[in-house]
Amino acid sequence: MQMGRHLGFLLVFISLFIGLAVADWNILNRKKKNELGSSLKNYCESWRINVELNNIRGFDVVPQECIDFIGKYMTSTQYKVDSERALEECTLYLSSCCTFKGDGKDAWIFDVDDTLLSLVPYYKKHHFGGEKLNMTSLEAWMRESKAPALQHTMKLFHEIKSSGLKIFLISSRRECLRTHTVDNLIKVGYHGWTNLILRELEDENVQVQNYKANARKRLVDEGYRIWGIIGDQWSSVEGLPTAKRTFKLPNCLYHVS
Amino acid sequence: MQMGRHLGFLLVFISLFIGLAVADWNILNRKKKNELGSSLKNYCESWRINVELNNIRGFDVVPQECIDFIGKYMTSTQYKVDSERALEECTLYLSSCCTFKGDGKDAWIFDVDDTLLSLVPYYKKHHFGGEKLNMTSLEAWMRESKAPALQHTMKLFHEIKSSGLKIFLISSRRECLRTHTVDNLIKVGYHGWTNLILRELEDENVQVQNYKANARKRLVDEGYRIWGIIGDQWSSVEGLPTAKRTFKLPNCLYHVS
Repeated sequence: MQMGRHLGFLLVFISLFIGLAVADWNILNRKKKNELGSSLKNYCESWRINVELNNIRGFDVVPQECIDFIGKYMTSTQYKVDSERALEECTLYLSSCCTFKGDGKDAWIFDVDDTLLSLVPYYKKHHFGGEKLNMTSLEAWMRESKAPALQHTMKLFHEIKSSGLKIFLISSRRECLRTHTVDNLIKVGYHGWTNLILRELEDENVQVQNYKANARKRLVDEGYRIWGIIGDQWSSVEGLPTAKRTFKLPNCLYHVS
Repeated sequence: MQMGRHLGFLLVFISLFIGLAVADWNILNRKKKNELGSSLKNYCESWRINVELNNIRGFDVVPQECIDFIGKYMTSTQYKVDSERALEECTLYLSSCCTFKGDGKDAWIFDVDDTLLSLVPYYKKHHFGGEKLNMTSLEAWMRESKAPALQHTMKLFHEIKSSGLKIFLISSRRECLRTHTVDNLIKVGYHGWTNLILRELEDENVQVQNYKANARKRLVDEGYRIWGIIGDQWSSVEGLPTAKRTFKLPNCLYHVS
């Protein structure tokens, strides 16, 4: 009986030891994993932030080793929260920025792709920007008119419309995609814009940034006061004439210059 | 004996159960912590990225609840890697961007604070931007001339000097800090710039972005070709005249407009 009790306690200690060792091993293993992952994570995160800072420009593809990282970000809560915050800043700006004349010449500009409509589902099927863009394939997808809306941009879109501003959509999509683009926009809930400006044949050899600046120039010449622009590419918001304020949504899947 | 063995086995099972429960509890606890932490982390990260995207402007202090997050980032490997990547992009650009005339009129512009010299040690003692800037206290610290260099900017600085470009430092520091600023720059290893431009008394009521653009205007009027600007604030790189390319270093500790 005495020996049995001793054996019992011994076994208790051994198994408590095993249990605690399992717990420790779990912690250790997680730590190791973090250390191993950190330098590639640092590299890919620095690539992403430098794309957003407009320091890395004109890339054709997302670096091969960062496809997973970028894919995870672009489908993450963080991407959603980052975009929402940008849109909240638009709302905040609009609440105090401007005295609208109400003469029908107050205007706001939206980009289309990855601003009103998300191309993430397309890029998800194409290695999250890790393979070179095939324009024929992308345009075929656009013709299906099934790009989802960025929900928070939709909210801003309708807020801006309610405040009496004219909305102009300036997109680098080609004119031949007009019907499918309008279909897509209406289907997901956008309506009531003043003009959807798409690339005519003669614009196709012009750099997107210049094409978009030229489109704004025409609006300014027509007497519009552009209070704001929101887009996911620096080429959508840079160049002259500009707006009183510009807003840049995050997007590291591709670069349009 | 038989009963003792039974008791022993029972105790073994109980303690194994306890041990495994401890392990599970550890995992569960960590998961919970992540979940609880994730939404604040999401919030602070979205604040940071929107500062870098120039969507959030003119803030006086870092949001109270993000001080820890911002402090961690600004003293992290990630901040270092992000900055290094921006500087590598400058080097890459310089390797193919320009045909320098070699007439002494090719120029490059550097910002000073958090571009050549790091203010992070000062902000570390002042809640990482979580308390409103006390200019008297910051200038007293600047007079100590002990700001460390950003090592990768130093590398770029000397590369640019070696390539024959004239280097201009345009800073929002006041003219009265000249001696201490020069002391600090020399002490950490910067030398050979053409001009250090500081704010004169009459510039103190001018917005920093305009003051910096005016300084560039004078350089352009003197015949300089500005091939690049690097700074940590959008106000250091925006406004006209600009450079052929601009580069923005990360910095979410403060905002200068």
